[in-house]
Amino acid sequence: MAKKLVTFGEVMMRLSPPGYMKFSQANSFELVYGGGEANVAISCAYLGMKAAHMTRFPDNAIGRAATQFLRKNWLSSDQIIYGDNKLGMYFLEKGAVHRPSVVVYEREGSAFSLIQPGMVDWEDVLKDADWFHWTGITPAISEGAAQCCLEAIKTANKMGIMVSGDINSRKNMWKYGKTMQEVMPELVQHTDIVITSPRGINEMFGLGDAGGKFKDSAKALMDEFPRIKRVVGKKRKSISASEQEIQGRIWTGKEYIKTEIFEISHVIDRVGTGDAFAAGLIYGLLHYEDDLDALNFASAACALKHTILGDVNMASLDNVTSLMGGDTSGALKR
Amino acid sequence: MAKKLVTFGEVMMRLSPPGYMKFSQANSFELVYGGGEANVAISCAYLGMKAAHMTRFPDNAIGRAATQFLRKNWLSSDQIIYGDNKLGMYFLEKGAVHRPSVVVYEREGSAFSLIQPGMVDWEDVLKDADWFHWTGITPAISEGAAQCCLEAIKTANKMGIMVSGDINSRKNMWKYGKTMQEVMPELVQHTDIVITSPRGINEMFGLGDAGGKFKDSAKALMDEFPRIKRVVGKKRKSISASEQEIQGRIWTGKEYIKTEIFEISHVIDRVGTGDAFAAGLIYGLLHYEDDLDALNFASAACALKHTILGDVNMASLDNVTSLMGGDTSGALKR
Amino acid sequence: MAKKLVTFGEVMMRLSPPGYMKFSQANSFELVYGGGEANVAISCAYLGMKAAHMTRFPDNAIGRAATQFLRKNWLSSDQIIYGDNKLGMYFLEKGAVHRPSVVVYEREGSAFSLIQPGMVDWEDVLKDADWFHWTGITPAISEGAAQCCLEAIKTANKMGIMVSGDINSRKNMWKYGKTMQEVMPELVQHTDIVITSPRGINEMFGLGDAGGKFKDSAKALMDEFPRIKRVVGKKRKSISASEQEIQGRIWTGKEYIKTEIFEISHVIDRVGTGDAFAAGLIYGLLHYEDDLDALNFASAACALKHTILGDVNMASLDNVTSLMGGDTSGALKR
Amino acid sequence: MAKKLVTFGEVMMRLSPPGYMKFSQANSFELVYGGGEANVAISCAYLGMKAAHMTRFPDNAIGRAATQFLRKNWLSSDQIIYGDNKLGMYFLEKGAVHRPSVVVYEREGSAFSLIQPGMVDWEDVLKDADWFHWTGITPAISEGAAQCCLEAIKTANKMGIMVSGDINSRKNMWKYGKTMQEVMPELVQHTDIVITSPRGINEMFGLGDAGGKFKDSAKALMDEFPRIKRVVGKKRKSISASEQEIQGRIWTGKEYIKTEIFEISHVIDRVGTGDAFAAGLIYGLLHYEDDLDALNFASAACALKHTILGDVNMASLDNVTSLMGGDTSGALKR
Amino acid sequence: MAKKLVTFGEVMMRLSPPGYMKFSQANSFELVYGGGEANVAISCAYLGMKAAHMTRFPDNAIGRAATQFLRKNWLSSDQIIYGDNKLGMYFLEKGAVHRPSVVVYEREGSAFSLIQPGMVDWEDVLKDADWFHWTGITPAISEGAAQCCLEAIKTANKMGIMVSGDINSRKNMWKYGKTMQEVMPELVQHTDIVITSPRGINEMFGLGDAGGKFKDSAKALMDEFPRIKRVVGKKRKSISASEQEIQGRIWTGKEYIKTEIFEISHVIDRVGTGDAFAAGLIYGLLHYEDDLDALNFASAACALKHTILGDVNMASLDNVTSLMGGDTSGALKR
Amino acid sequence: MAKKLVTFGEVMMRLSPPGYMKFSQANSFELVYGGGEANVAISCAYLGMKAAHMTRFPDNAIGRAATQFLRKNWLSSDQIIYGDNKLGMYFLEKGAVHRPSVVVYEREGSAFSLIQPGMVDWEDVLKDADWFHWTGITPAISEGAAQCCLEAIKTANKMGIMVSGDINSRKNMWKYGKTMQEVMPELVQHTDIVITSPRGINEMFGLGDAGGKFKDSAKALMDEFPRIKRVVGKKRKSISASEQEIQGRIWTGKEYIKTEIFEISHVIDRVGTGDAFAAGLIYGLLHYEDDLDALNFASAACALKHTILGDVNMASLDNVTSLMGGDTSGALKR
Repeated sequence: MAKKLVTFGEVMMRLSPPGYMKFSQANSFELVYGGGEANVAISCAYLGMKAAHMTRFPDNAIGRAATQFLRKNWLSSDQIIYGDNKLGMYFLEKGAVHRPSVVVYEREGSAFSLIQPGMVDWEDVLKDADWFHWTGITPAISEGAAQCCLEAIKTANKMGIMVSGDINSRKNMWKYGKTMQEVMPELVQHTDIVITSPRGINEMFGLGDAGGKFKDSAKALMDEFPRIKRVVGKKRKSISASEQEIQGRIWTGKEYIKTEIFEISHVIDRVGTGDAFAAGLIYGLLHYEDDLDALNFASAACALKHTILGDVNMASLDNVTSLMGGDTSGALKR
Repeated sequence: MAKKLVTFGEVMMRLSPPGYMKFSQANSFELVYGGGEANVAISCAYLGMKAAHMTRFPDNAIGRAATQFLRKNWLSSDQIIYGDNKLGMYFLEKGAVHRPSVVVYEREGSAFSLIQPGMVDWEDVLKDADWFHWTGITPAISEGAAQCCLEAIKTANKMGIMVSGDINSRKNMWKYGKTMQEVMPELVQHTDIVITSPRGINEMFGLGDAGGKFKDSAKALMDEFPRIKRVVGKKRKSISASEQEIQGRIWTGKEYIKTEIFEISHVIDRVGTGDAFAAGLIYGLLHYEDDLDALNFASAACALKHTILGDVNMASLDNVTSLMGGDTSGALKR
Repeated sequence: MAKKLVTFGEVMMRLSPPGYMKFSQANSFELVYGGGEANVAISCAYLGMKAAHMTRFPDNAIGRAATQFLRKNWLSSDQIIYGDNKLGMYFLEKGAVHRPSVVVYEREGSAFSLIQPGMVDWEDVLKDADWFHWTGITPAISEGAAQCCLEAIKTANKMGIMVSGDINSRKNMWKYGKTMQEVMPELVQHTDIVITSPRGINEMFGLGDAGGKFKDSAKALMDEFPRIKRVVGKKRKSISASEQEIQGRIWTGKEYIKTEIFEISHVIDRVGTGDAFAAGLIYGLLHYEDDLDALNFASAACALKHTILGDVNMASLDNVTSLMGGDTSGALKR
Repeated sequence: MAKKLVTFGEVMMRLSPPGYMKFSQANSFELVYGGGEANVAISCAYLGMKAAHMTRFPDNAIGRAATQFLRKNWLSSDQIIYGDNKLGMYFLEKGAVHRPSVVVYEREGSAFSLIQPGMVDWEDVLKDADWFHWTGITPAISEGAAQCCLEAIKTANKMGIMVSGDINSRKNMWKYGKTMQEVMPELVQHTDIVITSPRGINEMFGLGDAGGKFKDSAKALMDEFPRIKRVVGKKRKSISASEQEIQGRIWTGKEYIKTEIFEISHVIDRVGTGDAFAAGLIYGLLHYEDDLDALNFASAACALKHTILGDVNMASLDNVTSLMGGDTSGALKR
Repeated sequence: MAKKLVTFGEVMMRLSPPGYMKFSQANSFELVYGGGEANVAISCAYLGMKAAHMTRFPDNAIGRAATQFLRKNWLSSDQIIYGDNKLGMYFLEKGAVHRPSVVVYEREGSAFSLIQPGMVDWEDVLKDADWFHWTGITPAISEGAAQCCLEAIKTANKMGIMVSGDINSRKNMWKYGKTMQEVMPELVQHTDIVITSPRGINEMFGLGDAGGKFKDSAKALMDEFPRIKRVVGKKRKSISASEQEIQGRIWTGKEYIKTEIFEISHVIDRVGTGDAFAAGLIYGLLHYEDDLDALNFASAACALKHTILGDVNMASLDNVTSLMGGDTSGALKR
Repeated sequence: MAKKLVTFGEVMMRLSPPGYMKFSQANSFELVYGGGEANVAISCAYLGMKAAHMTRFPDNAIGRAATQFLRKNWLSSDQIIYGDNKLGMYFLEKGAVHRPSVVVYEREGSAFSLIQPGMVDWEDVLKDADWFHWTGITPAISEGAAQCCLEAIKTANKMGIMVSGDINSRKNMWKYGKTMQEVMPELVQHTDIVITSPRGINEMFGLGDAGGKFKDSAKALMDEFPRIKRVVGKKRKSISASEQEIQGRIWTGKEYIKTEIFEISHVIDRVGTGDAFAAGLIYGLLHYEDDLDALNFASAACALKHTILGDVNMASLDNVTSLMGGDTSGALKR
């Protein structure tokens, strides 16, 4: 039977000019929805898992439309809560070659940021789940969001559900009065699988060296937080906005493993590729015995996301296993 | 030489599903910008006047794109100020026949709402102006916006510039701690031309009867605020979302005048029709000796706006005078 | 707690040229999905009911995309079965004024038409349902579809679930060797609420007069099939493809009731208006004591569908009750 | 066997903002091609006739694309000639209700305007033709075009082919040094069926009264040009840009006949409705014995064109005969 | 005078999500038509040849729209026959980089598959033709299609018309009871130019080695079928869905010739590239003395098709000869 | 305070099929405006300079829409003059890989080409300007345009304003009776900064060697026209329509300097890249002391333009300095 993933976090409306237009050229916006954690849930759903995303939407027509996006993309929506009247949103102008993408956020005061501890019945939400996933974005949004995230993690621990956290460090997001150094340790302490980088480990926990080796930083992190079973990273080389290289790496506590490099020669949409990696990792760890297989699966999923519009990876299981198996031809099978 | 109008108020991004789609059907949003006062300025510019709109935009790519919309529509942009990072926005789902339009606002915390007295050099902004126009929306947004509006009105008085105010009563907007009953009187006291309705006069100033006759309410208002030279109204009959009737009415202090009824049999976009009326009134009072002519001009402009997409009236002077002269045929002149 | 509706039938891909383009002008097709019964389920879901639609889709990317359409529109998808490789489809060229719409079907050999008795576990599908709805299209598609429909109806009878059938007569559809006169009686015999017309009653059962009075035909039908509790009809006057009039009528066994006439002056999309009526009737009979209220609700829902693109009515409960209460103004409430 | 029509005249590229957008709002243009005479040929082709249009296109990629438009719409393209490098074009901003459409032409110096007598082998082009049609636009374009038109008409006379001319008076078009009063008489002298109005007859030939009765003017025209067998007119009432009324009228030399009034309540595209009338008249006169039938056919075709985007009438024979027979319901026949 | 090509085969409607969207993201489909043989005819027409395609379309509005596509793309349509009511169609989701395209066919029961021997007057259809082309898809569709194809080939033989066949092996298509091993030999026996691969030769005729050398397989094929004058192949290397390499090869009976490798670095649309190769080969063999020239022409045409949307190659003669001559710069000549 | 640039030249409407469609596939055209000199002004405006463009537009709705494009893109429009009725336009079909773009011009007889000396008050237009820029296109359009250009240059000389000229040689454009060899010398004689190539220098002035070294040709040019302070060039290598390389070069009178090569691996829109180079050069020379810095700025601006749709470079100052500084990663900074 299909494994079930539950995620928690903000979902934003994403508005982008058509194709490669700049903001100043747009008469219309393409509309999708996305958010780091929901992206992971949807990616896993397209791979065949069961998945639910827990969030809070405004109680209006826009909140309902956002819910419909999640439903369409195979998530259940029964557990979502509604209140207040603002949906976070972001504007994305897609870059190309030497021209970087531009992102403008309007997320302050969103219904999600106003979530409060106690609003979610986590035991009910996590019922039947095999895995819970959170990211470092959620605790940065508001104190209420951080506390809800901790509630979720602790409930998962209690229920014996695996917990993963993608703890990229976005310093600029922390504006509600607490720092990430204050908040993150307690969340990570209860987490089993951590996706991060030497820089993140250094900035958030003062461990290792921001520019140092992945293995050393990962080891330091694991020493500090003994619950952690894997520290996983994704090394990206940005040749240009149109060409990227991806390589997965993992510290299992015993071994340091890297994948081959995946080259993406014609980027279609770079947003959400990290979330595709996380989703691939979750799927991989749940379905492969071997860490390298799991990591290859994650990296292949990440590579494929670069070819898919929107925030979420819609690659099929067959797409991922085929690329993971070395078939880079993209050839149509009739 | 062309007369010059200056307006002041918030400009929002307007996002609407294509055509008659509902929010739940949209994969993209049509994008325009609008705001009660800027709509008036742009309408007057399309009629051939000089016009500038004073506002505050976020200091980012979205704020610059909004500025470009104003520039494209013939307004000057030199006086606009920038700061903070949020542009107010609203979502519009267009109705038809018995199905009403749906509007969802996300304007709290906008760059405009954070404007403070002293930020604008009104003498500079109003230099060369013949007319200043404000609406009841601005003082409802924030205390800073209300104070800036008062600054502008008083400066205009001092500079001998005509002042008009479109003071529709939107009770639900007042959320910053003051009521419209507290704030509006001082603004209206310095205003020469007031656009309103018996209900508005009653709710805002406790004068007249909310369901009463226009003439009586207008008279009461003029008695209370002796600076007022004209009280003007627009009577709308909504046969359905697709069919509307419009009739202008004015109390000149001496006479009560009404126009014929303008029937709009196939509405294209109903938003901003009140602003088109206000713009037409300003143009009319500046260019016609006769009050009925001015009022007919205003009503014809209003009727024409129902056939134009977006928030702003782009009807030409020729369109308005032709309809005002009784030509309802919409016939193409080759 | 929300009442639950289950429906059963084919869902087709609907392809239509943009706006009022003709087939010969189209470079692209607008894409939605629809089918008489699913339309009813979705309409009820938008009104706030729980709803599920039982169907059979091809086991490929197109079948999954069709499923996603149902999920997005609030239906559950767990019960849907998959097999074979063809999705029924139809092409729709929208008419205007004197120009009729053109419809071309390509539905033969669809996955749904290949459904066989025993493929569906109806007790499971109908679990928790308050109402089951079918239409006369399903038994016309194939013998397997007719038999499945009968299975569903009988199971509903056994489980004490209300059964409604919209038995419009589409003679041309019956091509698999049985006639509607052979098949329909057994289905209608187990049905509680029947939506039809004098012509349908005459053609299908040889009762009443094809051009006769609704009440007389309805009476004859009820005499023949004593389980029937209500016979309901919708009288349409097609002034042109752009203007329609609708009036609901019902025979309760005791009383003949008609609604006022609903005039739709600017049709946006006429497809699925009968399904909107059926959905409104189901909602109405479940939520109102009075038959006229239920019928008014159905007729208002039907009228509103004419203003909504696609096959399904997305009108809200508030839209329907407001129109049903006589507010035809389509006025936006801010 | 199908009758064959040949027409001659300029074909322009038509560029229009999407839907009801104004020029100032457009980021793109909808692209079709049209021209009074080609519109007639294509309309007849959609009714089932054989049809060819003779024109001259620029010898470049744009000229070839224009040719492809004619081919797609069932015309043959073998006879078209190519040269020079400019395709005439016009910009169309569609009006609504009281707002008139705006048309801007850029046709001077077009490949067609540079056509010269002798360039076309008319005997070859008219081979197998049953009817030749020209309009008053062609002789207004250039002296070469006027001369070619006369060549065509005279060749048709010699070959025993019926000739019709739609001689609307567009004074402003005549810029090459000759007046319509100088040029038109010789063309009309060789024409069998003339479509015009009292105003046209008066302005072009100094006959009748510009505001007078159709019958009297028609009589005067027939007296002056004895070859003429029918004088036909179309009376239009423009209630607004969105609502029109059409009535056909004919003077047969013996009888004055009028059709009923056709009301078009929701105009989709008003351009080319006169050409649809001419096409309907040609089809009608070729296929009906009775003048009223032919005129009704023409008027119904004209009415239907108002519901079709672009310059050309794509109504089917069934559409026209159905409306002509009094069915105004626009009802879909499944 | 231009040479004339006649082709025979099914034409399908092709529906694809806009740009790089996946099926699950599409609200609309881009619409073109295509089919292996018609693609060849149209490609040759864009190169300046005369071309006609023989097919059978449904006798409805969709069949007529498909005909219009062929007409627009320079084919004559007089010979097309109509009957039944289904047009074959296929859905195409375009891949990128490592993500393969997805194709879903719905072609069973199409009007073309129901074609029967005797329906086509081949002598009339092939009148004036210089070349007849068929593909291995047609005999796989139905027994009737296979028999018609044989009729055509034999008629061409009798009339002294060159016959080419592109006999790619699509095992999965053969569902009507005969195998390709039974049907293909008789067709190939009457064919002059065969496009295929070692795998195809092995699977269809049991000759050569599926993974073997082109020359050896070609030799074996020519030995078996002495009418064959050339065996031609196209070697493709799929670096990714976005990057391809193409190399032509030919066995002339005496010589084995290969072209240089054509690298396509940014694929726009990969569908129909094999048909572009076949069209280029036909054009090349008809217009060049030298086999390498003809093969280079074919390969250049194939390479260019990768940059053109839709199924058909619209490259001009100038495009092909320029690339064939070594100019890979894609530089605009003003 | 921001430096001000004034430019002079024709602005055309640019119509292009969506994306990579060919003319024969387009049902609509994307609409922008552009012209060599206006492109330079707008590029400089996006970099933060003040900029105005002097031109002549038709006095109609299309001329006003073109003006609005310039306003939107930050240019002032007060100085523009209006007259006659034709806007020059060009059609652009975008190429890819080996397929070149196709351009068709329709600019003869445009309002700009009818400009006459004396129509422009150059002292007023150039007031406050720091730089005036012209190109070799303007004197090729008409004698009037050439004379106006000379007026402008001489006025700039008199007012002490720097003058640059981008004198690419477009032989085919010169059709009004004078040759570029007759006209260009006087214009160049008054110019300070010249952008050209050895071929241009040879063809226009008979100096140097068309295929020779940049430095030698530049030297010869400077010897002939002693006012010239810099001769600047841009070497382009067109690997394919989708891949380009750019390298800037300059002769300062003392030194010959080249930049690194900028590789553009995925071209989005190649039009206007030369104008982006010129704009970058103007900005660079005004803001950097060092010639190499200025040249690098120009080359980086040119490279970035390849990734932006339309004729004009909308790259920000930050984009250019970042690429100029060696950051080719196109990485998003959050």
